[in-house]
Amino acid sequence: MRLKNTFIKTLREAPKDELAKNGALLTRAGYIHKEMAGVYDYLPLGLRVIENIKNIIREELNAIGCEEVLMSTLQNPEPWEKTGRFSDQEVDIWFKTKLASGGELGLAPTHEEPMVNMLKTYISSYKDLPLYVYQFQTKFRNELRAKSGVMRGREFLMKDLYSFHVSEADLDNFYEKVEDAYARIFDRLGIGDCTYKTFASGGIFSKYSHEYQTLLDVGEDTIYYNKDHSLVFNKEVFNDEVLAEFGAKREDFEETNAAETGNIFKLMFKYSEPLGLKFSDEENHMQTVYMGCYGMGVSRLMGVIAEKFADNKGLIWPKSVAPFQIYLVGIGEEGTKRAEEFYNEHADKILFDDRDVRPGEKFADSELMGIPYRVVISDKTLADGVAEVVERASGETSKISLDKLSDLL
Amino acid sequence: MRLKNTFIKTLREAPKDELAKNGALLTRAGYIHKEMAGVYDYLPLGLRVIENIKNIIREELNAIGCEEVLMSTLQNPEPWEKTGRFSDQEVDIWFKTKLASGGELGLAPTHEEPMVNMLKTYISSYKDLPLYVYQFQTKFRNELRAKSGVMRGREFLMKDLYSFHVSEADLDNFYEKVEDAYARIFDRLGIGDCTYKTFASGGIFSKYSHEYQTLLDVGEDTIYYNKDHSLVFNKEVFNDEVLAEFGAKREDFEETNAAETGNIFKLMFKYSEPLGLKFSDEENHMQTVYMGCYGMGVSRLMGVIAEKFADNKGLIWPKSVAPFQIYLVGIGEEGTKRAEEFYNEHADKILFDDRDVRPGEKFADSELMGIPYRVVISDKTLADGVAEVVERASGETSKISLDKLSDLL
Repeated sequence: MRLKNTFIKTLREAPKDELAKNGALLTRAGYIHKEMAGVYDYLPLGLRVIENIKNIIREELNAIGCEEVLMSTLQNPEPWEKTGRFSDQEVDIWFKTKLASGGELGLAPTHEEPMVNMLKTYISSYKDLPLYVYQFQTKFRNELRAKSGVMRGREFLMKDLYSFHVSEADLDNFYEKVEDAYARIFDRLGIGDCTYKTFASGGIFSKYSHEYQTLLDVGEDTIYYNKDHSLVFNKEVFNDEVLAEFGAKREDFEETNAAETGNIFKLMFKYSEPLGLKFSDEENHMQTVYMGCYGMGVSRLMGVIAEKFADNKGLIWPKSVAPFQIYLVGIGEEGTKRAEEFYNEHADKILFDDRDVRPGEKFADSELMGIPYRVVISDKTLADGVAEVVERASGETSKISLDKLSDLL
Repeated sequence: MRLKNTFIKTLREAPKDELAKNGALLTRAGYIHKEMAGVYDYLPLGLRVIENIKNIIREELNAIGCEEVLMSTLQNPEPWEKTGRFSDQEVDIWFKTKLASGGELGLAPTHEEPMVNMLKTYISSYKDLPLYVYQFQTKFRNELRAKSGVMRGREFLMKDLYSFHVSEADLDNFYEKVEDAYARIFDRLGIGDCTYKTFASGGIFSKYSHEYQTLLDVGEDTIYYNKDHSLVFNKEVFNDEVLAEFGAKREDFEETNAAETGNIFKLMFKYSEPLGLKFSDEENHMQTVYMGCYGMGVSRLMGVIAEKFADNKGLIWPKSVAPFQIYLVGIGEEGTKRAEEFYNEHADKILFDDRDVRPGEKFADSELMGIPYRVVISDKTLADGVAEVVERASGETSKISLDKLSDLL
């Protein structure tokens, strides 16, 4: 992408009501635009980050046999009434609206009910199971406050996966596969070493659920972890009874802030029972389908990664999610010409700052935007047949010969 | 994709309230699931069709310099109040909802207002223009009735492009580029020869807008075309005054039904003026930005293509939008083994019917699903070193040697 050809530009200031670091930096760097608290537009760079995160998740889920669909936002109350969740008392973050032809609708805050309801068309026998179905869908939650940038949206993008099984053993088996896939996803997103699977509160059918919590100073959650991180608890389950169950002592745990970036839950019959999702087993007896659900906040991940790695100069993206790998600057007549040539060969992975502004402004913008490598080709570097490369994360400068530059991509 | 591994299956019947052919066939063939009138889920095959349509549009728009963003569904009334369009009297298809912290919001039926409002941050000088910004976004329209399948949704996917210019001449110039891009898009979608640019009603600033109307028996619009299709009018402008303007005679025109698949509009100052989108010109005078908008219904295109080409056996997809190019069947031990091998080499482009059902059922499903080529590898065809290929659109059967099969992909 050529900066001359794009409408985005870095901004000196974020909106006054943007209190979160991720929201302010992403706005100033031209990734997002705030519509209102918790509601953002994704500009070209931001959309590329979102798509990179989605593709990493998609690849890992497809690899364990999951199928992608796209369900609707508008929700017919009927299936939600069967589980009691259309009630504003039961679920207090609904956005509701009215159909012109009569009747109330909801904007989906999650999709268990319509997913189970839809699959009643497709599941009738044990031969139809197991099934793993996911989507990337915009969710709507009518939060009273939303002041954490894209880390807590009223409108946000989520990956939600649902699994369906003939037995608890099969659910357990797939649950472990998702744990492995989640570990690979967080690794690839660059936050594997600071994201822990925690014990969180369960439900009717299972004592605990699990969350994925990413260590973050401004995270809204509080977690407790032991020395080797083999046991990590969410605040709501960190009590003497639970500690006794795990044979652990309170004094071995430290408290810290974290942001929830994923959750996985053995739902068992919670939704399949009230919605009547059944299958006939090998003896032709009707059984209720076992079910699990597995969430991951895509736009939240963008916010958490932005918030976590940023320094006082701006954003720092892991290579896997960066919108471009190289921020390219040409200086001088021959330097600019060679930069053009390099850009034309790899236009899709390079953000080319071809604007008529001084190099210092370009360097500052490259730091604010957080592109992994800043590459400068100038008449001076060309004298040695090299380009100057600065790694954004470490700040380290190196000289790389022109024919090796593409190794950075 | 292996049919054994996917949850979708063909259905004998569509829901009773699904009156539209496209909705019924897409449901029976496992592409969509109906949530309510005008609201559908996209199942794995349907999502692939949607993504194929999006990619064709994306490639052609990127080629003329457009930039992709993603704006929000939830709409702050403020910019809409400036144009008068938040009023239910003015725009009668709003879905409205209430924010828990107070205030009314809308679900975007289109995005002129937030787009113009957002770009006020980025446009200040003639140097920032022209700009072409588009998105693929779910739109919400509270239709009283919605009985045309995915051709008329209450929730539907649309591509909306907005352009911004310093002058009418520059707008005109880009408008022509979009016309060319639209022609290429409709060609690539396989409906170029039955889609016409029509004159439609204009607005305050321009006498006419243009629509793209695809000939379709059940299309909701009526258009009038002359013999060589050099002049095509929407019903609302087909009157003596307009005919006189174009020097045309009423008796030279025929009436037909069509479905609107795109529209383009010289908005001029319609939104930029009330919203105050201005730029300083080369003489440092403030000027109002000239604007155009260019829509295309993505999910509607899926419905129109499905509706238009289907025959009594099922769907018929043009190759460019088909979810897979080949529906593969192996018969007999060696035939199945060779089919497996061919599938494994090109898994992404083949729908492999590896189910334990009789070939006749597979053939019927391949026709209902509308995959361009049905390829059968059997012990019998292998004796001649070939596979049997049936083209879905023509019904023509041919023998193709195994090493040439991948030419179909």
